[in-house]
Amino acid sequence: MQLTVSSDIALRTLIYLGQRDAPVTISEVAEECGVSKSSLMKVVMTLVGANLVLSERGRNGGICLAQEAGNISIGSVIRLMENSLALVECMKDSPSGCPLLPSCRLKPILNSAQEAFFSTLDNHSLADLLKK
Amino acid sequence: MQLTVSSDIALRTLIYLGQRDAPVTISEVAEECGVSKSSLMKVVMTLVGANLVLSERGRNGGICLAQEAGNISIGSVIRLMENSLALVECMKDSPSGCPLLPSCRLKPILNSAQEAFFSTLDNHSLADLLKK
Repeated sequence: MQLTVSSDIALRTLIYLGQRDAPVTISEVAEECGVSKSSLMKVVMTLVGANLVLSERGRNGGICLAQEAGNISIGSVIRLMENSLALVECMKDSPSGCPLLPSCRLKPILNSAQEAFFSTLDNHSLADLLKK
Repeated sequence: MQLTVSSDIALRTLIYLGQRDAPVTISEVAEECGVSKSSLMKVVMTLVGANLVLSERGRNGGICLAQEAGNISIGSVIRLMENSLALVECMKDSPSGCPLLPSCRLKPILNSAQEAFFSTLDNHSLADLLKK
């Protein structure tokens, strides 16, 4: 049971940006967060697309948070970054390969467990991660 | 966010065994659950080791549940089958690679979310999956 590398990088990036008062370069974030620049670029594009990060051009440009840290829930970040929330085969959009599916009662139970997971994360914002 | 294939196979196997009154062969389980015999063998060894499945030798031998379905919690099955419960790097036994770790407050929040996930599953037993 683990999250994708993209979720990990997104969380590191947001924590790092939340600790800075001015825009920082992609290179700085990559170095300070211990991730590759190419992986970081992809994640940042997703974060910019979701209006969690702002990308500013120019001499003093760089990336910074697009919202107050208190408005960014950890649950929303992980929902955004995970390619799939299908814990097992039958939770995929086009499930196949499990002959037990027609009579199986597993899916709603796993769904409720996953909902409990995200509900917990929805109660925490990026600001909670930045407290000293 | 997904569970390992081993968890998926273990759940299918236990559901199938819970629907049968007599021991069944590995070949039958593999075919009826749509999984490879070699993957199934590994999972069954783990389930036998955890006293969830009994393996009986002989002419009428095969595998069957070692306990009442009502005593097998879904949470315990998934905890057993997942190689690692480390959602991200810093939750590993020997974390490395995240320079933010010393001051990061993410780990306890992810731990509590994961606990909420398993608490939900602990409230459901294999018997809940077998109800018609």
